[in-house]
Amino acid sequence: MVKLVFARHGESEWNLANQFTGWADVDLSEKGKQQAIDAGKLVKEAGIEFDIAYTSVLTRAIKTTNYVLEYSDQLWVPTVKSWRLNERHYGGLTGLNKADSAAKFGDEQVHIWRRSYDTLPPLMDVNDPHSAHADRRYADLEDSMIPDAENLKLTLERALPFWEDQIAPALKDGKNAFVGAHGNSIRALVKHIEKLSDDDIMGVEIPNFPPLVYEFDDKLNVTKKYYLEEK
Amino acid sequence: MVKLVFARHGESEWNLANQFTGWADVDLSEKGKQQAIDAGKLVKEAGIEFDIAYTSVLTRAIKTTNYVLEYSDQLWVPTVKSWRLNERHYGGLTGLNKADSAAKFGDEQVHIWRRSYDTLPPLMDVNDPHSAHADRRYADLEDSMIPDAENLKLTLERALPFWEDQIAPALKDGKNAFVGAHGNSIRALVKHIEKLSDDDIMGVEIPNFPPLVYEFDDKLNVTKKYYLEEK
Repeated sequence: MVKLVFARHGESEWNLANQFTGWADVDLSEKGKQQAIDAGKLVKEAGIEFDIAYTSVLTRAIKTTNYVLEYSDQLWVPTVKSWRLNERHYGGLTGLNKADSAAKFGDEQVHIWRRSYDTLPPLMDVNDPHSAHADRRYADLEDSMIPDAENLKLTLERALPFWEDQIAPALKDGKNAFVGAHGNSIRALVKHIEKLSDDDIMGVEIPNFPPLVYEFDDKLNVTKKYYLEEK
Repeated sequence: MVKLVFARHGESEWNLANQFTGWADVDLSEKGKQQAIDAGKLVKEAGIEFDIAYTSVLTRAIKTTNYVLEYSDQLWVPTVKSWRLNERHYGGLTGLNKADSAAKFGDEQVHIWRRSYDTLPPLMDVNDPHSAHADRRYADLEDSMIPDAENLKLTLERALPFWEDQIAPALKDGKNAFVGAHGNSIRALVKHIEKLSDDDIMGVEIPNFPPLVYEFDDKLNVTKKYYLEEK
């Protein structure tokens, strides 16, 4: 039996301001930092020992991962950072306040962009200060691999190779894994793990806290799913 | 031209108490945390962009590395943690106050253990709570690879494969590298990089702050060496 623990990063500064974040590299809020620390304490209380940790290349997920490892006394655990675990890229909505974008595009349209599995939001302008094309952290990627907007479907398509190449083999190898990531990259992996339909996944919410645990048998069938709780 | 930046971890809780630390996993003091943050700010001011970071499996070096990357706005840089960058293992001296160990073994003997290149301190007892043999982070190592005490010579011997397999190839590949490590593991690598004699290296002190920079040509000859300074 192996364990996979997902922690969505704690509240970010833009969550707080109700802005679409996506690939913008926004820091944790003070509350978000505390949520990550508390997540680490729950991992410790549950006695979960990781062999490997995965996170995105965005500060709020990396800091969450570091706090979880630190507060569960396993900061030494090897940690792999990958853009494939990044948040869904919110395209031209990035940085917009959710109320402002509703005023600009209409409530219903914004609702569709948020809740549809495969409708794409407006593309981000290449000259947008948040564009990933000029960001050094993506310099090793083919330019055509760098998204200008994503729906959940595209998020899953680019996250899946990371699951198949790295996370799944580690789990099959008997390694307990931690994933510190984002609402939509975790949702994408949850869809894959639980074989949920396109419709069903859109009803699933991943909370900022507490961490979500899956237990698997050696064929990677889910044997148990639960959230960590204080004892 | 590539850059290699060494940061010795900031002051630890045991530095503060003047205890031999070695492989004991002691946290940074408040001052040590601030030194690491300041080191990150100096890296940012100097405009140094890392492609890869290396650290030990000890909390104080990992946290230093994380602070340096965070405060130079590059927390996303891939980071490899290896026991080969650990501090020198201080054997039976681990945890002893420097005054107490002098009272127990004599001033001169303790001075020799600290300052001789190849004299071994007393071995740590296998049942010592600080013994690495029962520590999960070293579980993948052959038991015979886990030291019970080290001098600087042995520290260099186990650090060198990491230099040759990981750090040197990255530098030759044009990658700027950061190493967040310890007084003696940095000293060991400095001996190798500068081709210093066994005697000469014992006179070299690595400060907790500021970071030390080497610049290399493409044959890995040192072209420049300096400490980062506030502008």
